[in-house]
Amino acid sequence: MQEMCQLWIVKCDSNAMDNVATERMAEESHRQDSANLLIFIMLLTLTILTIWLFKHRRFRFLHETGLAMIYGLLVGVILRFGVHVPQSMSDVIPSCAVNASPATLLVNVSGRFYEYTLKGEVSRGKGHQVQDDEMLRKVTFDPEVFFNILLPPIIFHAGYSLKRRHFFRNIGSILAYAFMGTVISCFVIGLIMYGFVSFMKVVGQLGGDFYFTDCLFFGAIVSATDPVTVLAIFNELKVDVDLYALLFGESVLNDAVAIVLSSSIVAYQPAGDNSHSFEAMALLKSFGIFLGVFSGSFALGVATGVMTFTKLRDFPLLETALFFLMSWSTFLLAEACGFTGVVAVLFCGITQAHYTFNNLSPDSQDRTKQLFELLNFLAENFIFSYMGLTLFSFQSHVFNPMFIIGAFMAVFLGRAANIYPLSFLLNLGRKNKIRSNFQHVMMFAGLRGAMTFALSIRDTATYARQMMFSTTLLIVFFTVWICGGGTTPMLSFMSIPSAVLDGSQRRNTKHESAWPFRIWYNFDHNYLKPLLTHSGPPLTATMPACCGPLARCLTSPQAYENEGQLHDEDSDFILNDASVSSMYADVTVSTDASGSHTINRKHSFNYSAGGGPSDEGLDHELALAEHEVAIRGTRLVLPMDDPVEPPTTVTLPPPPSPPRSDPRRHRL
Amino acid sequence: MQEMCQLWIVKCDSNAMDNVATERMAEESHRQDSANLLIFIMLLTLTILTIWLFKHRRFRFLHETGLAMIYGLLVGVILRFGVHVPQSMSDVIPSCAVNASPATLLVNVSGRFYEYTLKGEVSRGKGHQVQDDEMLRKVTFDPEVFFNILLPPIIFHAGYSLKRRHFFRNIGSILAYAFMGTVISCFVIGLIMYGFVSFMKVVGQLGGDFYFTDCLFFGAIVSATDPVTVLAIFNELKVDVDLYALLFGESVLNDAVAIVLSSSIVAYQPAGDNSHSFEAMALLKSFGIFLGVFSGSFALGVATGVMTFTKLRDFPLLETALFFLMSWSTFLLAEACGFTGVVAVLFCGITQAHYTFNNLSPDSQDRTKQLFELLNFLAENFIFSYMGLTLFSFQSHVFNPMFIIGAFMAVFLGRAANIYPLSFLLNLGRKNKIRSNFQHVMMFAGLRGAMTFALSIRDTATYARQMMFSTTLLIVFFTVWICGGGTTPMLSFMSIPSAVLDGSQRRNTKHESAWPFRIWYNFDHNYLKPLLTHSGPPLTATMPACCGPLARCLTSPQAYENEGQLHDEDSDFILNDASVSSMYADVTVSTDASGSHTINRKHSFNYSAGGGPSDEGLDHELALAEHEVAIRGTRLVLPMDDPVEPPTTVTLPPPPSPPRSDPRRHRL
Repeated sequence: MQEMCQLWIVKCDSNAMDNVATERMAEESHRQDSANLLIFIMLLTLTILTIWLFKHRRFRFLHETGLAMIYGLLVGVILRFGVHVPQSMSDVIPSCAVNASPATLLVNVSGRFYEYTLKGEVSRGKGHQVQDDEMLRKVTFDPEVFFNILLPPIIFHAGYSLKRRHFFRNIGSILAYAFMGTVISCFVIGLIMYGFVSFMKVVGQLGGDFYFTDCLFFGAIVSATDPVTVLAIFNELKVDVDLYALLFGESVLNDAVAIVLSSSIVAYQPAGDNSHSFEAMALLKSFGIFLGVFSGSFALGVATGVMTFTKLRDFPLLETALFFLMSWSTFLLAEACGFTGVVAVLFCGITQAHYTFNNLSPDSQDRTKQLFELLNFLAENFIFSYMGLTLFSFQSHVFNPMFIIGAFMAVFLGRAANIYPLSFLLNLGRKNKIRSNFQHVMMFAGLRGAMTFALSIRDTATYARQMMFSTTLLIVFFTVWICGGGTTPMLSFMSIPSAVLDGSQRRNTKHESAWPFRIWYNFDHNYLKPLLTHSGPPLTATMPACCGPLARCLTSPQAYENEGQLHDEDSDFILNDASVSSMYADVTVSTDASGSHTINRKHSFNYSAGGGPSDEGLDHELALAEHEVAIRGTRLVLPMDDPVEPPTTVTLPPPPSPPRSDPRRHRL
Repeated sequence: MQEMCQLWIVKCDSNAMDNVATERMAEESHRQDSANLLIFIMLLTLTILTIWLFKHRRFRFLHETGLAMIYGLLVGVILRFGVHVPQSMSDVIPSCAVNASPATLLVNVSGRFYEYTLKGEVSRGKGHQVQDDEMLRKVTFDPEVFFNILLPPIIFHAGYSLKRRHFFRNIGSILAYAFMGTVISCFVIGLIMYGFVSFMKVVGQLGGDFYFTDCLFFGAIVSATDPVTVLAIFNELKVDVDLYALLFGESVLNDAVAIVLSSSIVAYQPAGDNSHSFEAMALLKSFGIFLGVFSGSFALGVATGVMTFTKLRDFPLLETALFFLMSWSTFLLAEACGFTGVVAVLFCGITQAHYTFNNLSPDSQDRTKQLFELLNFLAENFIFSYMGLTLFSFQSHVFNPMFIIGAFMAVFLGRAANIYPLSFLLNLGRKNKIRSNFQHVMMFAGLRGAMTFALSIRDTATYARQMMFSTTLLIVFFTVWICGGGTTPMLSFMSIPSAVLDGSQRRNTKHESAWPFRIWYNFDHNYLKPLLTHSGPPLTATMPACCGPLARCLTSPQAYENEGQLHDEDSDFILNDASVSSMYADVTVSTDASGSHTINRKHSFNYSAGGGPSDEGLDHELALAEHEVAIRGTRLVLPMDDPVEPPTTVTLPPPPSPPRSDPRRHRL
């Protein structure tokens, strides 16, 4: 253990021994860091001002992310060709050769110990030219910054602002696109690229190793579509809600799939030699990793998402802070457990929006929405402007024309192999078909964005990864500028209707819901919501009579107070103004009148047998009873095939009041 | 340049050569980092929940920061004594000896280059026991995190929420306490400590060097009082506004003074030898640095603070983002220029609250307030719980009982030497005397907090600095728990009145304002506010007639629209409800009637000579004229000694309308 290893120092500046000089260098480095960060802040400021100009003039051709990229590009060009760093900067990099690369290095400088931390590997063979582009290397962030700081707010916000009602209505199709579609796309792209790469090897166009796993990895990272631009455009144009839900839901979820898929592919390692050959066991293991990591992250995210804090309502600041910390701790917890923080955060966001959000005070609801909106906005524009910058500042680009052409073809075909066959299959089961113009839009609007970039920049050590990174960058540019910019024309060309809500459409939506959705919705609305939030009907109303005491114990007192306004706040999230209530109407309620009657009547008889109530008591009873019926009325029993009857609440004979011993009842 | 230096490697794990192992170690390290951060998040969550409990039960004895410290302490104890890290972790720290400590190190591991960055110096002589407390070292943050991430939002928020009206009314006294007081306190503490240290050297209690500059440095860092606890308690109790303004203003500004002062003391380096002797030139140079850095940071902060963006009002998200970015870029810009970012951010906050805030849309005003409130809350509680943690996790504590006793005495005497003599001198000039019970409260409420901690943890390399850090920690604990907890009893014991606003008090406030304040206020209200914001009277009304065109050009159109509601939104910041308007009343307006008349009349004659207006025109004119008078009425001319006259607007003969050619006028 305590053996001696040999070390060489290649270059070492003798005057660096001086302590003051070291301090000054550290200060200089700190200044430089500040200046670099300032460049990005200025970029963002510029972007914001231009976005404002665009919005002000209603100029919709270019989305803000596209704009951020352009500014990033310009700054990249300036840094690359306009700024020359004095050679003295290079003094700070002596290099010494060790045979180990530990995470922490203790260096003994004339009796003082300095601690160094591993920053990463510098690309092989580039060692000699490192000095020349110190400045460019300085503006290059640690790729983990993207995964640990910038991506989480974006992904969380996507989950938090998911159009939940429509999302759940189309859950089956969305899951199909997100899971099967991403896997299909990954393998299609991987196979096509493998063909291309093999051809390039024959032709002699390949400058390094490129294995099949690399191809699959490339397939995984470029299969993640970006919700950002689509969200913005569709929201502005008020496009058909189902199309919106399909596209947004897919692009949110496939980010999660792609990130877990890519890490499973990296984990695919055939035992024995380093041959990169196919092996069933290793594949199974990768598949196991995929399932394990995905379900682990999912479970963690949901678990933290449903954790409710109900009594903080009086202190919005504390509430907001707690909400924020819980989202963040989800991320950290998942990372600490070896799961994927970003995926956990996504599901945490979805769950929090569905349950916890309803428990927040109105003030905190605004605050959290605005906070996450702001964080998302900043992170997103930062990533996109950084993307523009890296095209010129990244120093190990490998632009291979053949590979690029192949990649563009593969991405196109992969998307097609995802959308069209799956839509065909889904349409077999869907009552509300996914029309062909919808399919074309989904095909067209599959932009690649932040996630693809973050995944590709995470590891740029090998030749294969460098080529992937450069190609990915071009794919992102192309899709954001061309496809993003073309979405509005595309929509009108495909004559996609805006969200019009006539009666017939409303009637349809219920029947077209898939039965798993209906079961889930019933369960969620009747049991989970009342249990986890203050909204929804009280459990006492929805649980079978035998579970009465348990139900009373689990229902929060506020649920009774809130029961008048049973429209929970889900819908206000993305739907706006008039459409909310009408949209909502189609999923709420048709009274299961006959069922309730029977029970009510029976109870009623029992009660009458017990003795006649006084007049005043009867009045009170009647009021309570009507209320009770109203509650039962909102119990959600979606009839499968029956025609909808008008609810018959008023003409009923008085059902009994609940047991008098229950003090909560009297608060009604 | 290319010379060879000798290197030794002390310990090196041979199996670390394996690439996979390195990767796994990096992953392990990442997990560990996540877990560590999670500890802090959990701490914060716990703190929030307990704060809520305290608030809920109206339990005011312990402030939330004190609470955060207690939790931090507990976790520190657990980490120190409860958790034992397996020895295998220490494998990651081989150490090799070089004679240079560059900021970046390139390590060649069997052909691959790894980049290492300098993390800092590990305390001398502790090298052998580093392996044992890897875990504790892991939870220790880079001190620069405090300066670059945690302190800025706290200081910005302090500036942003400064009670500006009362702040400006007491500006003279506040500046005296903050500047002269801090310098006095610094030197008094420094001298006392030097006496103690000299005595300890004689007795043989000192284990290392401790120079006079170290004593002064200690004096500077413990002179920074913390606004947090005081702000919270005083706000809750609605203490006398002047006392509040004095204490809060002082503690906000003396943070800035202390930080610049301490860096100037560090920069004090007598030429020639390392003798730490007194030298006039070096002192002058330090003083120059103090002035330069302070005024530079001040100028930068103010400059970015007044930058106005006026047309973004329709997009609150963009506005908020821009506002946030501008505050941050102030910090970065100052750091990049070699000034002090924290100081710049403080003045940026003050200026933005005074000017830019008025230009924001109401939505953004809420958003920014809430955002900064949240950031401040999180950063503050983080720092305080970290403080508690470091008492056990920091590994180079030097607790010297004599030094600690001396420090407590010195801090007490230093504070006394600041408050009492200055108050006496200030009372000579103040009409509204600072009463002796106010002085006692100011003496008592000088808590040490985040800034003191951040300054003392910044450099813990030498024996002297380590002893300072340990002692500072105890001072912070003592003042926050004892003085912070005792503030409420102290206030009632000293029978400090709540902010009662009877007529006499209102009348006094104007006369008691110092003349520099009155001049500044006039200038600010009449020229700066109209120029930089949409609020306040239009420049056309306040500037001399000869500057008419210029004034019209500089006034924003919205100023005319807003002129009805001339109460700008300053006051709502800390003052609340009823007190706002009455407070405001004392500073507004007595019409400079005679002056306006002369000019008006002259114009009027000119106009009449041009030709009689039609009836309708005359009506219009009259309406305009009355408006014009109303505007002039709000022009702020505080008479120095005259008794206040009632404004005489209605009985005036009609002054002329402004030139008809000006299209803006017609919008009135």
